[in-house]
Amino acid sequence: MFRKLVSVDDAKRILRQNFTPRPVGKEFVLLSEACNRVLANDIVSPLDIPPFNRSTVDGYAVKAADTFGAEENRPLQLKLAGKVNVGEAPRIKVEKSTAAEIVTGAPIPKGADAVVMMEHTVQKNQTILVNQSVLVGENVMKVGSDMCKGEIVLKKGGIFSPHEIGVLAAIGSAKVEVYRRPRVAIFSTGAEVVEPGRPLKEGKIFDINAHALSAAVAELGGQPVNMGIVQDKTEQMKAAFKKALSTADVVITSGGVSVGPTDIIPRVLDTLGKPGVIVYGIAIRPGKPTTIAIINDKPVFSLPGHPTSALLIFHLFVHSALVRMGGRKEDIPLRVDAVISERLFPSRGRRTYVTVTLKKDKSGRIVASPVPTGLSGAITTLAKADGFTVIHEHQQFIDKGQIVGVELLKPSVYYSLMR
Amino acid sequence: MFRKLVSVDDAKRILRQNFTPRPVGKEFVLLSEACNRVLANDIVSPLDIPPFNRSTVDGYAVKAADTFGAEENRPLQLKLAGKVNVGEAPRIKVEKSTAAEIVTGAPIPKGADAVVMMEHTVQKNQTILVNQSVLVGENVMKVGSDMCKGEIVLKKGGIFSPHEIGVLAAIGSAKVEVYRRPRVAIFSTGAEVVEPGRPLKEGKIFDINAHALSAAVAELGGQPVNMGIVQDKTEQMKAAFKKALSTADVVITSGGVSVGPTDIIPRVLDTLGKPGVIVYGIAIRPGKPTTIAIINDKPVFSLPGHPTSALLIFHLFVHSALVRMGGRKEDIPLRVDAVISERLFPSRGRRTYVTVTLKKDKSGRIVASPVPTGLSGAITTLAKADGFTVIHEHQQFIDKGQIVGVELLKPSVYYSLMR
Repeated sequence: MFRKLVSVDDAKRILRQNFTPRPVGKEFVLLSEACNRVLANDIVSPLDIPPFNRSTVDGYAVKAADTFGAEENRPLQLKLAGKVNVGEAPRIKVEKSTAAEIVTGAPIPKGADAVVMMEHTVQKNQTILVNQSVLVGENVMKVGSDMCKGEIVLKKGGIFSPHEIGVLAAIGSAKVEVYRRPRVAIFSTGAEVVEPGRPLKEGKIFDINAHALSAAVAELGGQPVNMGIVQDKTEQMKAAFKKALSTADVVITSGGVSVGPTDIIPRVLDTLGKPGVIVYGIAIRPGKPTTIAIINDKPVFSLPGHPTSALLIFHLFVHSALVRMGGRKEDIPLRVDAVISERLFPSRGRRTYVTVTLKKDKSGRIVASPVPTGLSGAITTLAKADGFTVIHEHQQFIDKGQIVGVELLKPSVYYSLMR
Repeated sequence: MFRKLVSVDDAKRILRQNFTPRPVGKEFVLLSEACNRVLANDIVSPLDIPPFNRSTVDGYAVKAADTFGAEENRPLQLKLAGKVNVGEAPRIKVEKSTAAEIVTGAPIPKGADAVVMMEHTVQKNQTILVNQSVLVGENVMKVGSDMCKGEIVLKKGGIFSPHEIGVLAAIGSAKVEVYRRPRVAIFSTGAEVVEPGRPLKEGKIFDINAHALSAAVAELGGQPVNMGIVQDKTEQMKAAFKKALSTADVVITSGGVSVGPTDIIPRVLDTLGKPGVIVYGIAIRPGKPTTIAIINDKPVFSLPGHPTSALLIFHLFVHSALVRMGGRKEDIPLRVDAVISERLFPSRGRRTYVTVTLKKDKSGRIVASPVPTGLSGAITTLAKADGFTVIHEHQQFIDKGQIVGVELLKPSVYYSLMR
């Protein structure tokens, strides 16, 4: 097999033509597990909220007309009709010239249409002196004023925050149907990688990618299944892919694609299902040795071994598919314009991504400085970077002082720049 | 006990004087569990990363000086010294005028100081023709160029994203010490509240707060322990607080504080430890019936029953303590300036919080409109709101068209306004 580089745009188009990311399924979860999950259906309230007229204060439920004209130095007199407690169906009725003692949250008894606050009354045995008038509806939260029976109170595709969980609780839902989190099988390949925590022999390095990619998958609402390290041998690789494809919705591997003449992964992938490998090499820097396959409608992304390259390709190709498979809307990336601190050259014929740090200079302009190392093998490159800028294939260079668009890696950067 | 209202600022001061939020502890977690956790120590790399000079390309490891002058039409000739694979300690040495075949990621053998890319060579049996020169260090990722042994690679207090997890994996850590998540016991009180999922009798409403507050606690990195609904009876309440205080670091209750003459919670709290109740009523709207107690150095927040009030008080008083107890830095709230769409009046003598929605008008100004209902009993008030603005105690009103500061409830609002 020979690698045939395609442009970033072509690779995206080929992926789109061969795979349409759709929600992988639905499941019910308890309210306590719903935070950050995605609502799979519109939620219609089965009842009015509040379900009855509620008092919003401690005081006396009255007919408002009975209080008209009441003033501090000319109180009106009502007869105590009884008491309404919270959590009880009121058994009393408020007739003309009577009042029922009521506490906050209790149902307004029949006959009453307002509540006089306790501090505007004086109670003497069975008589209430009212020294301020109330309007009809005053201090009453009307039935259905928060939500109406039959109203759509939460929309499909919404993401649960504490407020949405509050809305569900209010209508009495103990569980809710959300989109299933896409299962993503992840493994690293390569004779040189060793699981962190194990002893490191000469010539070996610790595996970064399976861990960083698992975290990246979880961050987007996916469910990572870290399969660890798989050896670059045809049989082991085939077994690993079969296992991954039988249980997961997406498979991500890293490394092994750039080991020159022994490109086992694309060969193995082509034996596992149709259409097989659809992209084999992308004209991008970093990230060229990327393979994308579709096996029986499941996408497989074989990313480069270098961590910065792997995370960049994840961001450009996997992110979008994963988000949609989880039923989420794709978020528009956060960008800022910045002045570039030095001349940037692209890698010939390849779309080039340059990681940068951002700072405001004295005049308040945002300045982007390329992260010094630029090595795609370095994990610290990404940990230090605030974002990246792109040099397109047709550009000769970007000159020092030009304005470039920078896509941010962390939202927190945005806040600190915008203050 | 009589409620004695204190101002918001006084309540914050009293809380600060009686309780200093400190990290509640540390624990080890696996890398797979570290995402969004807070690093409890500086992390020092125990080794150089990479641990050896690595080739960044497929090609031939050489002495750079042996390639000087090589050109396309005047190739230089080197003798093949052997091959270096990834993951192996090289057993060969590159002598003058020799070259060792090498693949990406493999260790540079002794004697070599650069790598010529495969495409700039032609191999004929045991002879390599080199048709481009390389500089010393070219195509080599130097030992320690990513991280140096002894270097602080991650700082205490940092929050784990995929990049930081990648850094830990790179230095071989399989687990990491993070701050323990503060345990927060949460219960609702009131004769009227019923657990969602249960049948709803007349006069009852479903419990919102225990669920919404649990989600709010989890969102800030706390570990909610939802104790459900506790009846407003002295003995039940005492038992619930004792259980909560024996296992949790913070206790949050809601409701029950505003049931007038039967204010059981403050009475019970004062029997459980010193100093007991420190704040009993705050001059704030909504949220007045708030009690804060410190029991043997654990804070107890008794929030109002109305969900909007409860979540506002949580935001103003619990948020900060909880964040610091989890070892996090307090994030500076996101704010925007906006034109207010109508005249706002404060509640007399109380700091007044008005929930608003935000929109850009045709001229690009951000306009804040109060959420119509304004009822603190409504959970949808908060679900609909983008943020809130504050009317201070001394202000008579805020006039229509004035500029107000709006604190945002969701960061996503910020992005959409700033585009």
